[in-house]
Amino acid sequence: MTLRQRCDHFNALHSSISAQGINPYFRPISKTWGTEVEVDGKRLVMIGSNDYLGLSHDPRVMDASARAVYDWGTGPGGSRFLSGNMVLHHALEERLAAFVGKRHAVVHVTGFSTNMGALGVLVTPADTVICDRENHASIFEGIKNTRARLVTFAHNDAAQARKRVEDAKAARPDGDVFLVTEGVFSMSGELAVLDELAAIKADHPDIVFYLDDAHGLGVFGRGGRGAADHFDITDKVDFIMGTFSKSMASIGGFIAGDDEDMLRFLRYQSRTQIFSAALPAANTVAVLTCLDILEREPERVDRLHAVTLRMRQAYKDIGLRIGASASPIIPIIIGSDEKAFQFSRALFEAGVFALPAVYPAVPRGQALIRTAYMSTHQDRQLDFVLSVLDRLAREFGVRECDMAEDMDAVCPDGDVAEASGRSRLSYL
Amino acid sequence: MTLRQRCDHFNALHSSISAQGINPYFRPISKTWGTEVEVDGKRLVMIGSNDYLGLSHDPRVMDASARAVYDWGTGPGGSRFLSGNMVLHHALEERLAAFVGKRHAVVHVTGFSTNMGALGVLVTPADTVICDRENHASIFEGIKNTRARLVTFAHNDAAQARKRVEDAKAARPDGDVFLVTEGVFSMSGELAVLDELAAIKADHPDIVFYLDDAHGLGVFGRGGRGAADHFDITDKVDFIMGTFSKSMASIGGFIAGDDEDMLRFLRYQSRTQIFSAALPAANTVAVLTCLDILEREPERVDRLHAVTLRMRQAYKDIGLRIGASASPIIPIIIGSDEKAFQFSRALFEAGVFALPAVYPAVPRGQALIRTAYMSTHQDRQLDFVLSVLDRLAREFGVRECDMAEDMDAVCPDGDVAEASGRSRLSYL
Repeated sequence: MTLRQRCDHFNALHSSISAQGINPYFRPISKTWGTEVEVDGKRLVMIGSNDYLGLSHDPRVMDASARAVYDWGTGPGGSRFLSGNMVLHHALEERLAAFVGKRHAVVHVTGFSTNMGALGVLVTPADTVICDRENHASIFEGIKNTRARLVTFAHNDAAQARKRVEDAKAARPDGDVFLVTEGVFSMSGELAVLDELAAIKADHPDIVFYLDDAHGLGVFGRGGRGAADHFDITDKVDFIMGTFSKSMASIGGFIAGDDEDMLRFLRYQSRTQIFSAALPAANTVAVLTCLDILEREPERVDRLHAVTLRMRQAYKDIGLRIGASASPIIPIIIGSDEKAFQFSRALFEAGVFALPAVYPAVPRGQALIRTAYMSTHQDRQLDFVLSVLDRLAREFGVRECDMAEDMDAVCPDGDVAEASGRSRLSYL
Repeated sequence: MTLRQRCDHFNALHSSISAQGINPYFRPISKTWGTEVEVDGKRLVMIGSNDYLGLSHDPRVMDASARAVYDWGTGPGGSRFLSGNMVLHHALEERLAAFVGKRHAVVHVTGFSTNMGALGVLVTPADTVICDRENHASIFEGIKNTRARLVTFAHNDAAQARKRVEDAKAARPDGDVFLVTEGVFSMSGELAVLDELAAIKADHPDIVFYLDDAHGLGVFGRGGRGAADHFDITDKVDFIMGTFSKSMASIGGFIAGDDEDMLRFLRYQSRTQIFSAALPAANTVAVLTCLDILEREPERVDRLHAVTLRMRQAYKDIGLRIGASASPIIPIIIGSDEKAFQFSRALFEAGVFALPAVYPAVPRGQALIRTAYMSTHQDRQLDFVLSVLDRLAREFGVRECDMAEDMDAVCPDGDVAEASGRSRLSYL
């Protein structure tokens, strides 16, 4: 297809969805308070943000970031490689390395560019990269660019991953073998089976074990030190990559490891590092301040887990299908793409901001609403969300019992939100 | 070579340069005033920044950016596609489109990701991309990822570009043909021959003409509207891409065009857009404020040209070899990589921050010092820089006359800075 044909094809699809008024993407937020936002004059409870600890609106983070604007100016003026490198970046690298339990770290301007740049340095066409099928797009793009052999394994299937590693070592004895996973999967909210993957690394110390912990940092491990810390396998991971656009209330990314030579190699050779402007001071200082707060107030992470546990249980009580979520990301499995669009629209009408993930982000027929919770969500906001979800789950027939072919599975009568003494109108 | 061998190879090179004390990269800046910075306790005049209009330290830009931190929080919480899209982004897109003379624009979080994402949507393996050999790395990375056929033409050689276009159309009649150039080349400071390239587009309206104007925006054209405006060929360009990390005192990038369907296609399909966090409010508002200032104070661009003209002429008077620079980027061609490292070190010792570009960023034996000027450079700073350059050019023997094989080419006696009545010690 020519460019014009591909463009027309997309726009036909876009028009049909927009004509139904159910296009959920690129909703323009006109105001934000973190856990609530305003869109088209309508105030909504936000359950679609990755700002898990709510630090983007913490006065200390905002103060420090605003001060950095005045201390350093708004733009970096160049790449870190040339004229944009600040002592702030090095201070952040030291803090991050210590935080995740590695000796060294290299900061990039985005998480996407961290994966893209790091994989581009580490991996050559002679190598094999073994990837969980649900890894983030930036990992797949990064690997694609290296021309290495990409082999996927079924999501969280460590036995298959082990077999892939052993096959790759046998098939290409001269190439390096990389094992790459996320710590927390961004759509399903599942934790990776890091203990089992670390055992593969223990048996095959010559492979390179690379962990993208974008959604684990600030959420799992002691005081939010991440998924590797949670499983106590930090020493088995060669590279821990993380981003600042989730719990760290900023943008940017980093890669950490113990081998100084290897990290210097990465620093100087990453093309997205050398050829991108540096992370500005305001964004860098925001992360430094988040680390200060995290180290002093680990109870923020505890609160996040309390919110998560409560909501996960409440979802189950409503009868929602949430897969194997173990994190603040709790998907609601809906079914068809169109139904997911409609469900998201109904949430919006009811005052809740949450978006669908449809094919190809998830398998066909497994379209879901991605919901995500924050430690700063107030109980009254959570009550409100549950009352809306309970009502819509019935209306849309997306409860486990609605789907069951077993006639014995009977849907409960009571309204969960009402049963717990909360009116669905108690909020907004 | 295995990863370990490649790493060791790099580190040996790095050690040898560092042992000589001439490694110029990743210098950690501890304070900045825009046109001056502090490194290792030493204050230097900065002539290596891309903040051409000095707006990163403009109080209006800093105020607006700091306010945005409080109004919007420090982090976006998600991608624009999902939960991080703000009305600010759309406002900026409208302003940028109007500024560069196109109908629509799409903002990305970095310039690198703009090229990477846009080319990834526009170009397929069946297509041919014809590129100036000196285009930016993000263009080459973006094309590499598409698996399209990449054909380069000799830098600024429009006749060769035309032949490449005609050959590609004949060889692959079913594929699209893209012609890609920068407006201002980031190392040589040269303007592209946009008038001649636009003529190719006029004769072949079916090709896609893509302009990366990262270093032209804010510098060329009416009030800084860019290189296409400068040549009055905006209507011939299908896509104008630009970045915010140069004259726009921020980070980020955009792509603009007239075709609404095509821009929507780009917006929804760009993988670096969908899978990256949004540009935070503070960085977005900085750009909006820069556009306000540019539209009200076009004299800032005039001042930049006055500084540029003065320095270009002074370089020539000193006898420096500056190639065909036509912009605030004025390279000083040195020769060997090692000499360029040493020259940069000597500049640093003398109080001037400017960095070398060596192979493979430039051809072997053509290593250069990249200098770049800002509208906010004060005359006393420029005088100081010239006095240092004049002295070092003699010491290093890098003047035109030092290199000439023609014995009649005699080096001038006088000290240019002294001759113009300025002492080399008049500053710092």
